Amino acid sequence: MTTEEHVLEKLELWRRKPPKFRDERITMAHGAGGKATQMLVEGLLAPALGLTELADAAVVEDLALTTDSFVVKPIRFPGGSIGELSVNGTVNDLAVSGARPLALTLSLVLEEGLGADDLRAEVEAIAAAAAAAGVSVVGGDTKVVERGRCDSMYICTTGLGRIDGRAKLSPTALRPGDRILVSGSIGEHGMAIMLARGEFELAAEVLSDTQPLWPAVDALLEAVGPSLRCVRDATRGGIASVLNELARTSGVSVVVREADVPVKPAVVGACEILGIDPMYVANEGRLVAFVAPEAADAAFAALAAAPGCEGASEIGVVRADPPGLVLVETAFGGRRVMDMLVGDPLPRIC
Amino acid sequence: MTTEEHVLEKLELWRRKPPKFRDERITMAHGAGGKATQMLVEGLLAPALGLTELADAAVVEDLALTTDSFVVKPIRFPGGSIGELSVNGTVNDLAVSGARPLALTLSLVLEEGLGADDLRAEVEAIAAAAAAAGVSVVGGDTKVVERGRCDSMYICTTGLGRIDGRAKLSPTALRPGDRILVSGSIGEHGMAIMLARGEFELAAEVLSDTQPLWPAVDALLEAVGPSLRCVRDATRGGIASVLNELARTSGVSVVVREADVPVKPAVVGACEILGIDPMYVANEGRLVAFVAPEAADAAFAALAAAPGCEGASEIGVVRADPPGLVLVETAFGGRRVMDMLVGDPLPRIC
Repeated sequence: MTTEEHVLEKLELWRRKPPKFRDERITMAHGAGGKATQMLVEGLLAPALGLTELADAAVVEDLALTTDSFVVKPIRFPGGSIGELSVNGTVNDLAVSGARPLALTLSLVLEEGLGADDLRAEVEAIAAAAAAAGVSVVGGDTKVVERGRCDSMYICTTGLGRIDGRAKLSPTALRPGDRILVSGSIGEHGMAIMLARGEFELAAEVLSDTQPLWPAVDALLEAVGPSLRCVRDATRGGIASVLNELARTSGVSVVVREADVPVKPAVVGACEILGIDPMYVANEGRLVAFVAPEAADAAFAALAAAPGCEGASEIGVVRADPPGLVLVETAFGGRRVMDMLVGDPLPRIC
Repeated sequence: MTTEEHVLEKLELWRRKPPKFRDERITMAHGAGGKATQMLVEGLLAPALGLTELADAAVVEDLALTTDSFVVKPIRFPGGSIGELSVNGTVNDLAVSGARPLALTLSLVLEEGLGADDLRAEVEAIAAAAAAAGVSVVGGDTKVVERGRCDSMYICTTGLGRIDGRAKLSPTALRPGDRILVSGSIGEHGMAIMLARGEFELAAEVLSDTQPLWPAVDALLEAVGPSLRCVRDATRGGIASVLNELARTSGVSVVVREADVPVKPAVVGACEILGIDPMYVANEGRLVAFVAPEAADAAFAALAAAPGCEGASEIGVVRADPPGLVLVETAFGGRRVMDMLVGDPLPRIC
């Protein structure tokens, strides 16, 4: 068997078995957005709670509802902060579900001893990000826990949106021939966080890409309507995880042309030194869009004209075979399998 | 000046000034639901975020949206656990806003090293409580933080409900003559948590009152419709805080007959030993309802027949003067002012 056939066989076996959660304790990997997270969610949470669809936002009648806790460390980093991130992350989950953001709620867990100025700065960041995204904060809650039972502050943001009628986005809608767009250069948010932690002696300056994505989704919907198949924001686990999840859910193959994936030189450099593939690094303001072939050019033009999406690129295509796999065509003409993230290279990046 | 006149004058001065948040650091009191929480919310969060109404749930079109983080310690206690509490607390915020609960989302912050069995038990408690409350869990999120950056687990629950058309509940709707009902004996949840912590050498067995309140609100709406003025669940800060908030918001006086407030003997005993007034102790399955006088008897009959509300009681009446004050008529015929909770006798009870 070739390596690829071997991987395929293993994946096939694994897909046939419903995942089980067998770990005895929670580890950091369960929060990293890769395979361990998937086992926890699909093996324990979803069956126990009766969750059938695991999308970025749940749909209730014509409404979309999404929730996320933000535990990013440090709370301020080049290009953003936990407050801004908590708004953008949530409005983006609505946006990529094809829902126009309507309202947000906010729940704060504060650590005893947190400086009032730090809190004030984040509340102001939340207000500014909400205004920029065009949503209202309509309610909230505040809890305080003892020193050492939190890490400055955690923020849980929940977003309510209205499903837009111009397309029916679905993770099962990918078809062979669909073309794949990304809204800008990848890996900046995760790398900005890693560098901000100062664990590595790297002088590179990388700013988080955090930004609201509804304007980009709105532009895509306006330009191509139902030819837009599916949109995802590439957060924890990076674009590799998004592409793997969708290849699996739609039962198709995804082929990515490595040379067409935009990555800024500072991110390439830092990833090389750290031995990380930027495809697995988190983004907080980048989307991946799948578009029917005949509409791809119009979609690309609309996307590239949306605010903050000047760096958009067409990065690949959907194929029929091998179903469930993501393949990368390297700049040298080779092909390799790009699997889901395993383990936890970047904990607490959002 | 009598003591009462003195208090009134101080309150009046305080009311005229918009509250300002002047503390330099967050303390446990900011999370306790009393005056410090109010200063944080009204002095910093609400103005910065443009929140105009501070209700249990926000209203967006005909929908109600509410969010709460649960950080209760310990996570399991006599009569309930954090999972059950996170569902009931949220559906109750919808219920007392006059909204029928439709759906919940769930965001978990887990501590590295948490036992899988503890997580499994809480997920099952969430599923059972959601089923009992008649709502679906439609989505969620999971984050993991390092050991010592959380306390087993925190749960943020957000509830979506539809406003029921049978009444227009409002905290400004109280009118002189309105009668005040409570759905059962008070102080059990907070006392159960205190005793479960084992900080006091008390052998009393007190079970948390955690339960969903929509059936009780539904029964009240069905029985008296628009004669139901306002409903609140008496969580952090107890019924004293709810009554104070509503007296202030409606510009009325609330008179409570102490002898008519149901308190179980074990709670009375524990409160006496600890020097705590049960009026300030948290409940998680008790509501306070304000009803127009002509409908009060019908409302009481409907409430007392609702599940878990056998211990309902009529505890007082709304008066015009002195506006903004809550007065307690003691069993001995005296009267005293019952102010808002100051400080933090019971941190992390929800």
